[in-house]
Amino acid sequence: MKATVDGQKCDIRAVWYENGKVRMIDQRELPAKIVIVDFEDYMDIAEAIRNMTTRGAPSIGATAAYAMCMAALKGCNLEEAAENIKAARPTANDLFYAVDYMYAKLKEGEKPAKAANDYAQMMVDKCTKIGEYGAKLIKDGMTLMTHCNAGALATVDVGTALAPMRRAHDQGKKFFVYASETRPRLQGMQLTAWELNQEGIDHAIIPDGASAYYMSKGVDMIITGADRIAENGDFANKIGTFDKAIVAKHFGIPFYVAAPISTFDFNTKTGKDIVIEQRSETEVTMLAGTRIAPVGSKALNPAFDVTPAELITGFITEKGILKPSEIHKVR
Amino acid sequence: MKATVDGQKCDIRAVWYENGKVRMIDQRELPAKIVIVDFEDYMDIAEAIRNMTTRGAPSIGATAAYAMCMAALKGCNLEEAAENIKAARPTANDLFYAVDYMYAKLKEGEKPAKAANDYAQMMVDKCTKIGEYGAKLIKDGMTLMTHCNAGALATVDVGTALAPMRRAHDQGKKFFVYASETRPRLQGMQLTAWELNQEGIDHAIIPDGASAYYMSKGVDMIITGADRIAENGDFANKIGTFDKAIVAKHFGIPFYVAAPISTFDFNTKTGKDIVIEQRSETEVTMLAGTRIAPVGSKALNPAFDVTPAELITGFITEKGILKPSEIHKVR
Repeated sequence: MKATVDGQKCDIRAVWYENGKVRMIDQRELPAKIVIVDFEDYMDIAEAIRNMTTRGAPSIGATAAYAMCMAALKGCNLEEAAENIKAARPTANDLFYAVDYMYAKLKEGEKPAKAANDYAQMMVDKCTKIGEYGAKLIKDGMTLMTHCNAGALATVDVGTALAPMRRAHDQGKKFFVYASETRPRLQGMQLTAWELNQEGIDHAIIPDGASAYYMSKGVDMIITGADRIAENGDFANKIGTFDKAIVAKHFGIPFYVAAPISTFDFNTKTGKDIVIEQRSETEVTMLAGTRIAPVGSKALNPAFDVTPAELITGFITEKGILKPSEIHKVR
Repeated sequence: MKATVDGQKCDIRAVWYENGKVRMIDQRELPAKIVIVDFEDYMDIAEAIRNMTTRGAPSIGATAAYAMCMAALKGCNLEEAAENIKAARPTANDLFYAVDYMYAKLKEGEKPAKAANDYAQMMVDKCTKIGEYGAKLIKDGMTLMTHCNAGALATVDVGTALAPMRRAHDQGKKFFVYASETRPRLQGMQLTAWELNQEGIDHAIIPDGASAYYMSKGVDMIITGADRIAENGDFANKIGTFDKAIVAKHFGIPFYVAAPISTFDFNTKTGKDIVIEQRSETEVTMLAGTRIAPVGSKALNPAFDVTPAELITGFITEKGILKPSEIHKVR
């Protein structure tokens, strides 16, 4: 992804290995400033996963792979390292997968940095292909809308929902993106708008409730990411996605979901089987340590919603664009 | 409305006259604390309108009436006072109407305090009737949803969208209200939830994007206020209303608009004729004086959206509940 670091425009990843160190963007400091932090001790990298210096399942996986790399380079006990790194965030599937991948590669005698770089590159390659397929949908002069952040920060580089936009922009296409701010944590405002701004893609932040207003005035396509896609095509994504999909259907606007095949969970039959994480109400009621809601009023904070397959035009994957009825082909 | 002032539960209005003074709730201090401010000089009351100590078109009208009352009591030149008060907020129709009403009454020899109290009472009476009609729609065990603040704070007392809830609660009905927070200014979180909390009505604040999530789980009715209703039933209201109306239609949930007949504008044929105020982007990008959006990203901040008549189940007015096709009856 493009980023201006120390006044210089450069092309960086969310996390990478360089001269014996693991470096990553401290995403907690965005969008106010770009801070690159360096690590040598694998336990410090595990802590960076825990304290959300880096976030987004694929980025967490790659960071865990680099943590295993550093453990190997420093001659640490790999069984112990694997256990410690896996404990950083107990629910991230990519974290477990990445640690197991690295453990197997290291036991096979693979060079630590090569194994970790290969892992990160796998994710980036998938996103690049998602970008290639998705960019074909974007025509000159189009107006797009997205929600939350399914960008390079979350996926090492390129992104999922933002991949087609990056590719179309590189191809010289002119288009405009509405980035829905995504309350309560504002990832749309603080991460997606930041990425679009760094790339030089024309965009504006809108309140989540302004979706119908702008769709009624003309939006050509919605593209979001996905946290989990059920076998029937129902998918879980950041709260507010379901509202946008219903409003898009009302106006006949195509609604696309960009995600690698690994996001499809064939053990989940339909969206009804997806359990929604309920997060702390303080994410809604507090801002910068100050309560903004009336004392005595409670708030509800579901992290995700589930959009049914019938509202989805297609899934943009590294294997091409699939209709919900075609998911079985990639099983 | 019920409010706890200095630790005592009492029944107060947004603005009222008492012992030679005009008193009002300083709405800028809500929900953190309830501050009652007193005025004797009509110019200070005009300033309270300007600086949004009080807000909401009907409350602004009543406050302007009380300002004229104080001007008369202090022997000020009434033409000059009328002009100064009208200049407080140049676009609020209720402000001009109230000042002209008072000027005529004072010229007829009406007692200043009686004339102003009558004006405020007219609004409260309309809201009370809206509450009576609307409460019939609310059954025991229902779950409701509202957006922004169409409560007592905006209308001197009782409210419009909140009037049916207050009345049903007084009748002993048990129901639950989702108060959508209403970005960017958070009137749903900071004013509606505050009012519901003071009344003891069971409720929860939700992010605007959680509407579809909760409607899919079971909402029986949506009630919002309106800023302007066109002749054909299209209506302008706080941004986010249109999204909720579309989502409600998707789930077959009744969508009601509570407003006095004076909100119908028979000079406006359809919603297309309503001009939407675009407010400063800093309401979206700044919080408590700090920029939260990336530097270089712009934001859009339309204050209202227009919901078409076909998405509306009915208008709850002081003359009863009207379908969009029945608006001509109250012309």
